[in-house]
Amino acid sequence: MEALAEALLEGHPRALAKLISRVEDRAPGYEAVVDALYPQAQAKGAYRVGITGPPGAGKSTLVDRLVTRFRAEGKRVGVLACDPTSPFSGGAVLGDRVRMQSLRDDEGVFIRSLATRGSLGGLSEMAHEVAVLLEAAGYDVIVFETIGVGQVEIDVMESADTVVVVLTPQSGDAIQALKAGLMEIADVFAMNKADQPEADRAAQALQLALRPDMTEGMWIPPILKISALRDEGIERLKEAIERHRAHLGEEGLREKRKGRLRAFLQRIVEEELRRRLWNSYGTALLDTQIEKIFQGKQGPYAAARALLQQRERGHTERGHTKPA
Amino acid sequence: MEALAEALLEGHPRALAKLISRVEDRAPGYEAVVDALYPQAQAKGAYRVGITGPPGAGKSTLVDRLVTRFRAEGKRVGVLACDPTSPFSGGAVLGDRVRMQSLRDDEGVFIRSLATRGSLGGLSEMAHEVAVLLEAAGYDVIVFETIGVGQVEIDVMESADTVVVVLTPQSGDAIQALKAGLMEIADVFAMNKADQPEADRAAQALQLALRPDMTEGMWIPPILKISALRDEGIERLKEAIERHRAHLGEEGLREKRKGRLRAFLQRIVEEELRRRLWNSYGTALLDTQIEKIFQGKQGPYAAARALLQQRERGHTERGHTKPA
Repeated sequence: MEALAEALLEGHPRALAKLISRVEDRAPGYEAVVDALYPQAQAKGAYRVGITGPPGAGKSTLVDRLVTRFRAEGKRVGVLACDPTSPFSGGAVLGDRVRMQSLRDDEGVFIRSLATRGSLGGLSEMAHEVAVLLEAAGYDVIVFETIGVGQVEIDVMESADTVVVVLTPQSGDAIQALKAGLMEIADVFAMNKADQPEADRAAQALQLALRPDMTEGMWIPPILKISALRDEGIERLKEAIERHRAHLGEEGLREKRKGRLRAFLQRIVEEELRRRLWNSYGTALLDTQIEKIFQGKQGPYAAARALLQQRERGHTERGHTKPA
Repeated sequence: MEALAEALLEGHPRALAKLISRVEDRAPGYEAVVDALYPQAQAKGAYRVGITGPPGAGKSTLVDRLVTRFRAEGKRVGVLACDPTSPFSGGAVLGDRVRMQSLRDDEGVFIRSLATRGSLGGLSEMAHEVAVLLEAAGYDVIVFETIGVGQVEIDVMESADTVVVVLTPQSGDAIQALKAGLMEIADVFAMNKADQPEADRAAQALQLALRPDMTEGMWIPPILKISALRDEGIERLKEAIERHRAHLGEEGLREKRKGRLRAFLQRIVEEELRRRLWNSYGTALLDTQIEKIFQGKQGPYAAARALLQQRERGHTERGHTKPA
């Protein structure tokens, strides 16, 4: 494992790919990998861009175009395509799809599909961990791309410094994004397929739908009309992302990083606590309480309180403290 | 609260609606309401049917038709329309949509839209709790209807005794349902819009896609061609649901109920534990650990372990046990 981590830090893409797989598979020792690379990742500090929006909005094409622009500046770019809807396909759907050949042949670009396989942890945690690996490996920009809209996509977007919400002039798009809560997290709107006749009206409608209570000094998400397919407006999109970054400033970025770390740490603490809770002792307590509820002796909330009380007592009695 | 619970048990729909709102809003004392009605609900025991499938498959129309059939037998029916995608609309989208007027005027039918408003708990837990209220109020059948496909929908379906997956001959439907893991949880397939020319082929394709390793005595999910709009095949659908119920038997139903209760109890215990974890002491420990990670002194997994250890020690030291 140490040899692999060394190789990753030296920039070997194979080592990176192998370590990502270990993190994805929750292979024994993956926590140590993340811990070992965390300080390196923090010291290097990649910029994180999230791209989200309804299915069919053209996110993948947009990502490809945007990555090409970052590459033109010599930046190394990691792309994480996150697919929360395929617990069973294991990400193959996204993985198999066509990316621009030029990007796939480019050693400065690393593309990876992420999916939650069964119950192996949440997608947003995994995206955060894999981003840390990419960061440690020296990638300058990390792009999180999601398919679909939903709570998991929003969670993934919390890993980004700048969130781009991609919409099309189709009227249903904005409603779908609004319903999913994407409007609240957007830093930049990309109105894709802007060559369609309804584009202007859609952009205006979106403008009106945005929070009217914007106060001074607040970032106002720009609405950019682009065409990913025709490669139009991508430079302006990149500039908008950079303007947002400048708006955040060093302090803002630090706060974002801290917030991310906080959320991540909270979740792994909770996960560990849950693991400890449902050991054989906790499971036995659970069975007893279920029996009592089944017999009509108490309700579930009273049972939950009783279980936690019993566990606390048992915990102490079984030797975690040694009263004289 | 007690007066309302009494009124609910006596069958007043207003009292039921009010108590559901309290549970939805997590109003003070909602746990006591659930606890008080749980034994009654268990004693009465409603049958729970889940209806899920991709958007546009015709689930609502199918539910309306099915409910009409149950009503013809004199059964009282509760319908819970669960919308996990609208954390902000508060369920208005579903609530506003057109239901059959005859059902809305029927006192033997109770229809309610459920949505997660912000972070007020998971939708599946809420659906379970509201179902308990309906059960206690004497409804014989509870129908869980979801919109869309995703993990939350699958979680909601775990509250059902029989799960009906609704598909249409559109080729994308089956793939979407497959990706979302709906195939694994289906007890009955309803191929809706069966008047379309591709219906036979779609049903055959679905048949082939089903697990080929079915063993003897196992329930084989039937694939029924129906037309909800034309009210065709609904009787056969109801019969298939009843056959599945008979297949489960009393023992199977008991196991389902136990499994549901187990999952529910586990989740409320975890929620309570999480609440206790992040009290002022836990939050202070978190801040300290974040600072250490920020300074590059340790990784997040080591920090998580340290936090839990510190908390355990602090817990004991601050008087939960009193060593002599």
